Parts: sequence; C-alpha cells; structure tokens
Amino acid sequence: MVDNWLKEYINNIEKQIEIYFPEINDCGYKTVSDASRYSLTLGGKRIRPIILLEFCRMLGGDIKKAAPFAVALEMIHTYSLIHDDLPCMDNDDMRRGKPSCHIKYGEDTALLAGDTLLTEAFGVLSKAELPPERVVKAVEYLSSLSGLHGMIGGQVLDLSFEKITPTADQLIDMYSRKTGGLLIAAATLGCIAAGMLDQNTIENAKNYANNLGLAFQIIDDILDCTADQNLLGKPVGSDEKNNKTTFVTIYGIDKSRQIAKQYTDNAMECLSTFSGDKTRLTELTEYLLKRNY
Amino acid sequence: MVDNWLKEYINNIEKQIEIYFPEINDCGYKTVSDASRYSLTLGGKRIRPIILLEFCRMLGGDIKKAAPFAVALEMIHTYSLIHDDLPCMDNDDMRRGKPSCHIKYGEDTALLAGDTLLTEAFGVLSKAELPPERVVKAVEYLSSLSGLHGMIGGQVLDLSFEKITPTADQLIDMYSRKTGGLLIAAATLGCIAAGMLDQNTIENAKNYANNLGLAFQIIDDILDCTADQNLLGKPVGSDEKNNKTTFVTIYGIDKSRQIAKQYTDNAMECLSTFSGDKTRLTELTEYLLKRNY
Repeated sequence: MVDNWLKEYINNIEKQIEIYFPEINDCGYKTVSDASRYSLTLGGKRIRPIILLEFCRMLGGDIKKAAPFAVALEMIHTYSLIHDDLPCMDNDDMRRGKPSCHIKYGEDTALLAGDTLLTEAFGVLSKAELPPERVVKAVEYLSSLSGLHGMIGGQVLDLSFEKITPTADQLIDMYSRKTGGLLIAAATLGCIAAGMLDQNTIENAKNYANNLGLAFQIIDDILDCTADQNLLGKPVGSDEKNNKTTFVTIYGIDKSRQIAKQYTDNAMECLSTFSGDKTRLTELTEYLLKRNY
Repeated sequence: MVDNWLKEYINNIEKQIEIYFPEINDCGYKTVSDASRYSLTLGGKRIRPIILLEFCRMLGGDIKKAAPFAVALEMIHTYSLIHDDLPCMDNDDMRRGKPSCHIKYGEDTALLAGDTLLTEAFGVLSKAELPPERVVKAVEYLSSLSGLHGMIGGQVLDLSFEKITPTADQLIDMYSRKTGGLLIAAATLGCIAAGMLDQNTIENAKNYANNLGLAFQIIDDILDCTADQNLLGKPVGSDEKNNKTTFVTIYGIDKSRQIAKQYTDNAMECLSTFSGDKTRLTELTEYLLKRNY
C-alpha cells in the first residue's frame, strides 16, 4: 500500500522537476545544466520532498502550491551529493548505481552543477504562489537548515571524524545536522507551505524529522555492513574501509537496530501530536525503518 | 572626494558583515566559518554592495534596511571567488595579495566555505526588515543573476574559451553574465530595496550595470597586461600565460581603452534617466574607468 502512494508522489515530483528545472536549449553552458539535471533525475527515494508534501497535506495545505518548495529541497539535497562525491571530499565514483557527476562530466562542471542547483533552488522557492511571508520563511529555514549550523556543519563534523574518534553524542550531533538538516527542512517547509507557522507545530515537526533522521542514518550504517551492493547502488563496506566510526562500530549491529527502533518510536510519538490525517507519514516512517537498501 | 564617501561605505559594509555573518563560537565546524569569513573580509573594493546601497539611496530608499541585501550580494561574490580559485577551476594560489582560501584552509574546507557563503547569503536576504514581496523579489533576482543563466553560465563560457577561441560577441556575452550578473544584481536589488519595482526602473538599472560591467571587465583585461602586480594583488600576465582571448588580444590596448570608454558613456547615459541624486554613482562610474588596480 505504501508503495502505491509513494510511486504516485515520486512520479509527481519528477514532473515538477521538469517544470521548475527543465532542460535548456543548446548554448555554451548547456553542459552545466545537463550535469545538474543528470544528478537531479538519477532517481532516489525522494524522501525529503515526499515528507514536505505530506506535512503540507496533513496540515490542510495545497500540495500543488507547495511543489516549488519540494523541488527546491530536492535540488539542495542533490547539490550536496554532487559536492560530497568530489575528489577533495568523499571521492565517490558511484552514486545510485551510476557514475557520479564528476566522473561523468569532469570535476569543474560537477562543482558548478552543484553551485547551480544550490543557487537555483532559492529561485525555485521564490516562484511559489503562496503568500510572500511564507516564501520568506521558507528561504530562512532552508538556508539555515542546509547552511553553516545545519547540513554543511554536519558535513564538516563528518570529515573531522576521520581524524578524531567521535563519542556517540558527537555522532548524534553530526547526524542531526548532516542528515537531520534537510529532513527537518522537509517537515518545517511542509508546515510553512500550509501556513502553520506557530511555534508548537514547527517544534513538533522538527522533533519528528530529527528522530526520523537519526533512525534513517543508523539504518544506513547497518546497511553499509549488511546490504546487497546491487540493491544499495553504492559500494558496501565503505565505512569499514575508511575506518569510520558509526553506530555499528560503537554499538554493534543488534544494539544499533534497537536504537534505530527507539528513534522511530520517538518520531511516531511526535506524529501523534498532529491532528490531521497522518496515515501516510506513519506508513512512510515504518517503511524507512524496514528498508533493506 | 570619491575616496571619502567610498571609504565610509566600505567601513559600513565591513560592519554589516560582522552583524550578518559574525565569527562563531568554538565548535567542530568553526573552521569552515573561519574560512568563509577569511575570504569575505579580505578587503576588495566592495563595488557591488556600494552600487546596491547607492541605487537604493538615489531612489529614496532606506540604506539601513538594504544592508542585508548588500551583505548577501558580497557573500555571493566571495563564494564565486573561492570556487573559481580552486584547483579544478582557475587554480589561483593568490587572491587580493593573500593566499587564496584553499591554500590557507585546504580544498575540502574551501569548497564548503563557498557553499556556506552561497547558502547563508539567501538566509541573510530573508532577514531584511522590508515588505516580504520585496524580499521575495530580491531572492528571485539574486538567484537568477548569479545562477545558470547569469554568473555561473558566464563562468562556464569562460572555461570553454580555453578550448574554443571566442568572437568579440561571445566574449561580450560571457562578460555580461560572469561580471555583469552580480553588477546587475547590485543595481536591481538596490531598486527593489527602495520599493521601485516598475519595469522601466529595473530595465534602466540593468542597462547601467551591464555597461558598467563590460567597461570594468575590459579594464581588467588591460590591467592584466599593464598593472603593477603589488597594486593589483594578483599575478600580472596570467591571461597571456593561459593563452586567453581577451579584449586586448582581439583589439589591442588602445582600442580596448576606447571601447571601455564607450561602455562607460553608455552607463552614464542610463544613469541620467534616474531622477534622484546620482552624483555618487556618476563619480563611482568615472572612478572605475580610471582605476589602475
């Protein structure tokens, strides 16, 4: 059942990408647009835009009007993957079972493709046909949750953990920013699109997404040791190869599964505070815990 | 005279940078904040924020309220310099007489410092205490003029000119995007901050800035052949070394000076259409033509 509505949402998001970030006509800089769209349309689970649209729907908003927010968020997520894969960062040749952007287009074009997606994401936000106060709020939240104290801060912490061995608390703080940042952006931008700007709603949405992000990331750590490489679409065992501290190296696989379950339960509890129809978000949260790729 | 009010503006902009992008407390990702601030506070002429604030003032706006726009624009300019200097791009070790960001902080941190400035710039825009319609308009213009069809497109064209020899028209198109993009953003965001959103005002502002940008860039080409390296703060003769087509290689130095003068005259003509006090913008435009570094 979850698969059906997820597929419908994914199809819709791919369509919205074509509207808000379409292929451009032949010109001297088409290559950077193609490289951006290559990574943006590589597939993936589209978790963040789905959460955004579902929060909007649950809170009585119009998901058609929230579409630019959803596309912008996926553009930010994609830019971060392109830049993270670069040789001076994680140096990953593969992404979602395909050559990563710099392998296909070269390092200079990949760098600029990331910059393009990041820059244009805010332009896409500005196109939303919503009251301008909501758009400004969305710009504020997306910038802050993907910026210095959000996703980028998390990425810096992650890189620093190659040199220092983090404690569990430091690992959690890193995940809350690196993975949590954009999931929190998803939930809060969904609230904002629906016009629910009160502190209570926003705080509950943040808590839900942070707990979901921690569960999600711990499961990623587990899958890095246990998954089928073909299903996962990226090399398995890279954490061990890179000597990375993860939940699995600190707690082992069984305990990590328990902790992921606890964070999922917390997320469910946050969900229960919302009064709208939360069936789908509940299904999605369970689905993410049970995924094997 | 021009020097006096320019210095006052520059001081003011440095102060606003401390307000909107301050040093952060010690934490695991302070280094990326320090790297961003290193490049942001390296000095430079602050031409773009000055033009923005002067357009706002000329059109009767409140330059205090426009300050976040000015800082955001300088952040975008700085991110572009950091990413342009990276080894996979222009591979420049020096910037404004100091080691460039990746030489001082490493390539991974410089990449993320650029991403930080770009992301946080839109957050700074969102903090402006102006009617939200104006802030949304500023987000739209800043994104588009620094994005795919603006500054980034110009940078891609510039890189492509290492492989193909551009015509004069192609060179002008590249400069209009690469240098022109952010100068046009400066002029138009100044109009937007002042609440002058009518098409006529915006078009005149765009034309002014585009002509100024072309004059500015041609003078850059000339200075690359003729300037004193210590004054310029970057290596002289790099265009020739890199086999770059510039206005000087197409037209020679004397003809290039004439063309720069023509673009400056065009810019002056655009300025004359505005009814406010344009003394300072006139002085600034003349000053930029006569600069020798």
